[in-house]
Amino acid sequence: MSNLHEECGIFGVFSERSEDVAALTYYGLYALQHRGQESCGIVVNDDGVMTAHKDVGLVGDVFTADRLDKLGTGNMAVGHCRYGADKFNSRQNCQPVVVNHMKGCLALAHNGSLTNAYSLRETLEMQGAIFHSSSDAELIACVITQQRIVSKSIEEAVCGAMDKLEGAYSIVVMSPTKLIAARDPHGFRPLCYGRIPEGAYIVASESCALETVGAHFIRDIRPGEILMFSPNGITSIDTHCEKCKPSPCIFEYIYFARPDSVIDGVSVHQARKNAGALLAKAHPAEADVVIGVPDSGIDAAIGYAEESGIPYGLGFIKNKYIGRTFISPGQKTREHQVRIKLNPLGEIVRGKRVVLIDDSIVRGTICAHIVHMLREAGAAEVHMRVSSPPFIAPCYYGTDIDSKDSLVAVSHTIEEIRRIIGVDSLGYLPLEDLPGVLGNKGCGYCNACFTEQYPTAVPDQRSKNRFEQKLNRVMNR
Amino acid sequence: MSNLHEECGIFGVFSERSEDVAALTYYGLYALQHRGQESCGIVVNDDGVMTAHKDVGLVGDVFTADRLDKLGTGNMAVGHCRYGADKFNSRQNCQPVVVNHMKGCLALAHNGSLTNAYSLRETLEMQGAIFHSSSDAELIACVITQQRIVSKSIEEAVCGAMDKLEGAYSIVVMSPTKLIAARDPHGFRPLCYGRIPEGAYIVASESCALETVGAHFIRDIRPGEILMFSPNGITSIDTHCEKCKPSPCIFEYIYFARPDSVIDGVSVHQARKNAGALLAKAHPAEADVVIGVPDSGIDAAIGYAEESGIPYGLGFIKNKYIGRTFISPGQKTREHQVRIKLNPLGEIVRGKRVVLIDDSIVRGTICAHIVHMLREAGAAEVHMRVSSPPFIAPCYYGTDIDSKDSLVAVSHTIEEIRRIIGVDSLGYLPLEDLPGVLGNKGCGYCNACFTEQYPTAVPDQRSKNRFEQKLNRVMNR
Amino acid sequence: MSNLHEECGIFGVFSERSEDVAALTYYGLYALQHRGQESCGIVVNDDGVMTAHKDVGLVGDVFTADRLDKLGTGNMAVGHCRYGADKFNSRQNCQPVVVNHMKGCLALAHNGSLTNAYSLRETLEMQGAIFHSSSDAELIACVITQQRIVSKSIEEAVCGAMDKLEGAYSIVVMSPTKLIAARDPHGFRPLCYGRIPEGAYIVASESCALETVGAHFIRDIRPGEILMFSPNGITSIDTHCEKCKPSPCIFEYIYFARPDSVIDGVSVHQARKNAGALLAKAHPAEADVVIGVPDSGIDAAIGYAEESGIPYGLGFIKNKYIGRTFISPGQKTREHQVRIKLNPLGEIVRGKRVVLIDDSIVRGTICAHIVHMLREAGAAEVHMRVSSPPFIAPCYYGTDIDSKDSLVAVSHTIEEIRRIIGVDSLGYLPLEDLPGVLGNKGCGYCNACFTEQYPTAVPDQRSKNRFEQKLNRVMNR
Amino acid sequence: MSNLHEECGIFGVFSERSEDVAALTYYGLYALQHRGQESCGIVVNDDGVMTAHKDVGLVGDVFTADRLDKLGTGNMAVGHCRYGADKFNSRQNCQPVVVNHMKGCLALAHNGSLTNAYSLRETLEMQGAIFHSSSDAELIACVITQQRIVSKSIEEAVCGAMDKLEGAYSIVVMSPTKLIAARDPHGFRPLCYGRIPEGAYIVASESCALETVGAHFIRDIRPGEILMFSPNGITSIDTHCEKCKPSPCIFEYIYFARPDSVIDGVSVHQARKNAGALLAKAHPAEADVVIGVPDSGIDAAIGYAEESGIPYGLGFIKNKYIGRTFISPGQKTREHQVRIKLNPLGEIVRGKRVVLIDDSIVRGTICAHIVHMLREAGAAEVHMRVSSPPFIAPCYYGTDIDSKDSLVAVSHTIEEIRRIIGVDSLGYLPLEDLPGVLGNKGCGYCNACFTEQYPTAVPDQRSKNRFEQKLNRVMNR
Repeated sequence: MSNLHEECGIFGVFSERSEDVAALTYYGLYALQHRGQESCGIVVNDDGVMTAHKDVGLVGDVFTADRLDKLGTGNMAVGHCRYGADKFNSRQNCQPVVVNHMKGCLALAHNGSLTNAYSLRETLEMQGAIFHSSSDAELIACVITQQRIVSKSIEEAVCGAMDKLEGAYSIVVMSPTKLIAARDPHGFRPLCYGRIPEGAYIVASESCALETVGAHFIRDIRPGEILMFSPNGITSIDTHCEKCKPSPCIFEYIYFARPDSVIDGVSVHQARKNAGALLAKAHPAEADVVIGVPDSGIDAAIGYAEESGIPYGLGFIKNKYIGRTFISPGQKTREHQVRIKLNPLGEIVRGKRVVLIDDSIVRGTICAHIVHMLREAGAAEVHMRVSSPPFIAPCYYGTDIDSKDSLVAVSHTIEEIRRIIGVDSLGYLPLEDLPGVLGNKGCGYCNACFTEQYPTAVPDQRSKNRFEQKLNRVMNR
Repeated sequence: MSNLHEECGIFGVFSERSEDVAALTYYGLYALQHRGQESCGIVVNDDGVMTAHKDVGLVGDVFTADRLDKLGTGNMAVGHCRYGADKFNSRQNCQPVVVNHMKGCLALAHNGSLTNAYSLRETLEMQGAIFHSSSDAELIACVITQQRIVSKSIEEAVCGAMDKLEGAYSIVVMSPTKLIAARDPHGFRPLCYGRIPEGAYIVASESCALETVGAHFIRDIRPGEILMFSPNGITSIDTHCEKCKPSPCIFEYIYFARPDSVIDGVSVHQARKNAGALLAKAHPAEADVVIGVPDSGIDAAIGYAEESGIPYGLGFIKNKYIGRTFISPGQKTREHQVRIKLNPLGEIVRGKRVVLIDDSIVRGTICAHIVHMLREAGAAEVHMRVSSPPFIAPCYYGTDIDSKDSLVAVSHTIEEIRRIIGVDSLGYLPLEDLPGVLGNKGCGYCNACFTEQYPTAVPDQRSKNRFEQKLNRVMNR
Repeated sequence: MSNLHEECGIFGVFSERSEDVAALTYYGLYALQHRGQESCGIVVNDDGVMTAHKDVGLVGDVFTADRLDKLGTGNMAVGHCRYGADKFNSRQNCQPVVVNHMKGCLALAHNGSLTNAYSLRETLEMQGAIFHSSSDAELIACVITQQRIVSKSIEEAVCGAMDKLEGAYSIVVMSPTKLIAARDPHGFRPLCYGRIPEGAYIVASESCALETVGAHFIRDIRPGEILMFSPNGITSIDTHCEKCKPSPCIFEYIYFARPDSVIDGVSVHQARKNAGALLAKAHPAEADVVIGVPDSGIDAAIGYAEESGIPYGLGFIKNKYIGRTFISPGQKTREHQVRIKLNPLGEIVRGKRVVLIDDSIVRGTICAHIVHMLREAGAAEVHMRVSSPPFIAPCYYGTDIDSKDSLVAVSHTIEEIRRIIGVDSLGYLPLEDLPGVLGNKGCGYCNACFTEQYPTAVPDQRSKNRFEQKLNRVMNR
Repeated sequence: MSNLHEECGIFGVFSERSEDVAALTYYGLYALQHRGQESCGIVVNDDGVMTAHKDVGLVGDVFTADRLDKLGTGNMAVGHCRYGADKFNSRQNCQPVVVNHMKGCLALAHNGSLTNAYSLRETLEMQGAIFHSSSDAELIACVITQQRIVSKSIEEAVCGAMDKLEGAYSIVVMSPTKLIAARDPHGFRPLCYGRIPEGAYIVASESCALETVGAHFIRDIRPGEILMFSPNGITSIDTHCEKCKPSPCIFEYIYFARPDSVIDGVSVHQARKNAGALLAKAHPAEADVVIGVPDSGIDAAIGYAEESGIPYGLGFIKNKYIGRTFISPGQKTREHQVRIKLNPLGEIVRGKRVVLIDDSIVRGTICAHIVHMLREAGAAEVHMRVSSPPFIAPCYYGTDIDSKDSLVAVSHTIEEIRRIIGVDSLGYLPLEDLPGVLGNKGCGYCNACFTEQYPTAVPDQRSKNRFEQKLNRVMNR
């Protein structure tokens, strides 16, 4: 998949007085860092004057005390962190995007992926537009500023732009005087807002970022809603709401989001525990201990243990120092590299029949290494349970799943996968249990990666190819 | 406490052929990084030629691919990582120490703290010795090289040096042709060895480092033992064994060591689970959920839950991006800073009676913040249980505990502490349960920090003061 | 002055085969570094695929071996280095500009300053254009790509764009298959080309860069000329030539260019020597030694000495280690800072009547410090001679001269300036001698900074103010 | 040659009040940077408390504003910069050396090379001494601290140490309360002192460093003299003076020192001009222009021009951006690399008979490239004149000359060298003209590199080999 498809975190602050909005955004991005570790940026708006810093790297590396200081104080800010196993891992693609246009300056942060990016871009280029990056964010900024020429206000321009954008987008837009949060009509990606008691309003991809800055959660932005914060108060524009059936991404619950977030009314941790419990019902096992692969398998393991009555155990110690700087020197095997990151707790698994919970199986290779380590550590039996259905289709809404070729479930039966990863039994969460994961709340979720049933038209492969060819022409390293 | 008192990790490799011993040491230090995050170093011995690199910083920052490459291959290596809330956080104090003496070159890595450092150093200085650092490691290297003049071999010199050293020391010494591991007669700090199947011998502070490099644990170095690896094989010198009753540090089990390590025959994870279970017996609670403060409270929480029958829950999400670069900007309160690192999982604690497990209480401040966050998240009751007895005395054997003045348990009753941290009930692990933590194995442990009963003479305060005054004369930044 | 007005160096390579064009550009930028030390960049074109790296900093800092390596080989490249005492010293303004448009990718490097930037930008914004930076280069790229829609080729688009651009611009434009060099009809900034024997064609701001890469000088690009290198050969388009009387910048000879460059047929070193000789005739002095302020006063000092018969002497030693990292700590006076950079050679000036040559006097402050140092070193008399006429007007063509307020010659008589800088006599190069500096070659030069006679309309102050206000809205640090 | 032989710069400050001695030392090291560009360090003494920072790199890179700030204020400081084409280019060898000994702390900076380092070190090691580096500075510190045990004061210890040291050493020693400058009895390396008007006393390798910090030169430290600055005033100890005939290094004048320095009463610039004039008499030439190889050939070229009446010309432009970060990418020849650093000024040499002056010829390779460039630039004839006699012998006093094998003059006649470098005629400064270079002042200089007549015993090759073998055992990178 290209870098156009990525998972990101976005954050915005709107305050009535000048304060340290850069620090708030810094904390918020720390809380959202799991959504994107490749690059990050903050733009501070001090009474219309915007100051920005963004770069490739983690929040803690990009924002030194000195850098943060230079951003100064202000009454608004926008922040962004970005994921992308990105061959164009360039500074050009760092967000927020900041552009000058007829009406002054505009900053924009985006999470999602447009399905009509290719044709939209071609149309704009035919009109003379030029692009410095390959990001959807720059494209959206261009559509909004084009609309601005024929609109009376920035919110009208955002509204007009939404008529043209298709696919997944949660955005925060900052004009000299207003902060605007918007979510696409399907609501693929999460977005919520809250308020610091008697202080600033906060917009964030996940509620955990609100809590981190001491804000109280107010509510999710609704699919299709435009929410504007201005000196005149808060305005909701709902002309794009209910244009289609909402279909938030279910994989946010299974893998992406932080367990302490609540998205569209459902606790992520609870959803994972539910998945574990449903898995225990669907695929029980005769076993002595239930363990989870850290970190995202832990919650489901606890749920499986509770439901099954088999004791929960700490199966692995994760090395918390393995980060971006780890270099894997020497002639070590890939299994060795897994072991450095994850060491089984011999005490827990030796001589035991083990239920091993993970959130998903992509290629199966890492999974096989983990199972092998458990056996070496003395596990008598290993019963693998996966807290999601098998992956069989690519995502066009901002998730960077491996191409279909490398998804083990596309070309193998469950029994074949069982043999590949070397377990005694293997069970996936049944597709029909997905609603139960969310406590049967919500009126529909996007589960295309498990079903190949897409809620929107998907990108035309031909224009996409043409586009990617052109993009390949620039690689800003 | 001064920088003389620190917790460290040490690592050694002895191979019969030239291989990538630097990479092995790099992996080993990654596995031991929790024992010391301030500085690290590796010395490679290639047939007598030693190449070293060491600096202030984490293993992943100090050792780039290029740096590791320059260390080259060899048949032996020594590695070290160091902790120290160190006002002299200097490069001079980085280990391993490498010195040239009459018989060539010697490298040394040390974990522990000498109790006679002050007088030993004064004696040597009276004889003309000069010191470049304030570390015990340099002092031990000096004593060994002095002994070397009157000894027939390096192992004899180490043996002679041990007659002069008092207190806690686990060391790895590398001469041009031999690797020597030694542990003080009390065995305060852990040290063990193992072997990569048909490959190199590995010496390490903890067994988790053996597993990380694919080595099989053979056994712990015995208190007082000198173990020498040379081209002629492995030799154990036990003249200092059983000179005194061994007293390994019990706090290694409670806090320092990694749960997947086994020290002196006892699993660290099991010890912590035992502590949790004993705590459940000693201080039961009427509650709905048991949660642990990550990471070191988790094991005990699982033990408490199992023993009590109260369900175990994930109480907090720890932000895994908070590292050395986190800068805490803005006017945030200390509680705010705690919240960025640790966010309570509202789903788990809301409306619940919570048992909260932590490994210790030092000042009580952070603990109070955590409790306050739980209450804000909706916990109905909070019952704090601590998996160790109250801290009442400083450690002279390599642990950097706060001075007595700041230990809350020194000057407050349990009831006062309960009120300070704001919990509904508070229970510490009873002193008499400590043997049970270790499964009643072992013949005695140092628990001086809980009892003020030191197994050795403690440093003379007067000479210590004189010494620290002198040390203050040099601060190499 | 704003950052729109800056002196820069540009460089281009066109080869018929794939080779290490990045290395050639690296060397070329090293040779042009004196034209711009704030930022630099290289874009490599490998058969249509463009790879770029650019950043704030010197060539030697921005391009590590690794960075250069990643640019790969190719058949074309464009390079840029930029000067700018730039309050927006941002990465956004680094060049070459690289943009995607309808016809693929385009890279552009620019030296000069447009006089209609403000109105041009407003017009484009009214049509929906957005700008990421405040640079003229992005603006020119936008005009060219707009033209590209209605043009049959990139060269036709450049030609069409030149109808809209006013002021000073020497540019190198790279399309997927062509390299285009163009110089504005006035020829304000230099641009020439040459060829490596049997190898690549090279375009560069100055001929010294050709020599550095081993290329032989062919000729200057003519004012108004578009020179296109394509697989079909070299094509010159002269539709904009002779549209106006050429007026290359005379200050290139006096200060900017490297003495070993030859521009429009005149050697820079020779021009400076001529200035010195003419100065000796116009303002003779009774003196014992002629010295020059390094580096740009040296050539004229040699010319003055030859003409006058007074011996030439090394007057100052310049500290060659003072670079970007020098921090001037402590409570030192400004004079002290000058002394660290420049120390008078007592041996040469003690007891002597000294003729001191510098290329210009701007504020007079540094000059006064230098004179004071000479007196302290024992100079009996100091006769200052300046190898250019007095500065009295701002430059709108790419030179960042101080604003009129700070030009000492605007508000002071020669006698007043003499007293301010503390010399025994002071003589400027007479205005009428300027043609002689260039050996009476050429048919006219821009000397507006000395005469306030501008060869073009100058920017409208009102639109400029409006524009700068808007730009202030974004500061990408 | 090994790193034991190096040229360095040393600097010391003694003030009666606490002030910004770190800044003074920073400026001083900038002025002395030409004496050593590999590493540098500063130690500040604040009323007995010493704070140090040192590292590999240029002064401007090692000392950031922050680093300098952390050194704080004080009443004394010592600084050092070091040269060394050093295979052990390690932090361990950075100076000043700072050690703790019986009487507290001691810092020491050294320039020179001991001829009895090998035996001295062996003797100390036999007594149990250990060494962390291979530097003479650590060795001297060890000898002094050993002496301190049997001495009443630090000055007495320095005096006693000088009885044991042989060879070249100029040192600055700082104890908690005193600053001591000493120069070996031969006075091989320069050392002088001065005073900032009504301020601090300054000790420096060269007088240019005094001027840089605004100090007035008082006098050179005499060969063999110990000069002590203490709260009780300045004391000179001359017990080692006149123990032997002084023999300062003549190569300081020819190459090392800055032209604006005055050493032992002789101006470096004047000495070089003298050399040029004497060369003009000894080897006249029929020529049109005299040019010098920058920087050190310039002074002699001016002298040659004045004496011969042939005009002086600027022959080359040196690229002032080529520094430590320059990486020479691509398949360029060595000549190409020379051209990037040095470009001939075609205007000056085209069609001319050129006299080319350089200070020395070592291997002849670079010289040949320079001559080739001149011919390519159109020089009709090239007459090479060298302002020193031919190099025929290694230096044992701190100069890192190539080994005898690579000195072209050892194995070739003048005529052969002429052909190798490709010039029309070649003339070296006659040996008998050396006194004239210094204006026939001084009573004898060391010219062993030209004569092989050493003023001291030279190191015993056998002990040296043994020693270097041992040193090879540690390479701290």
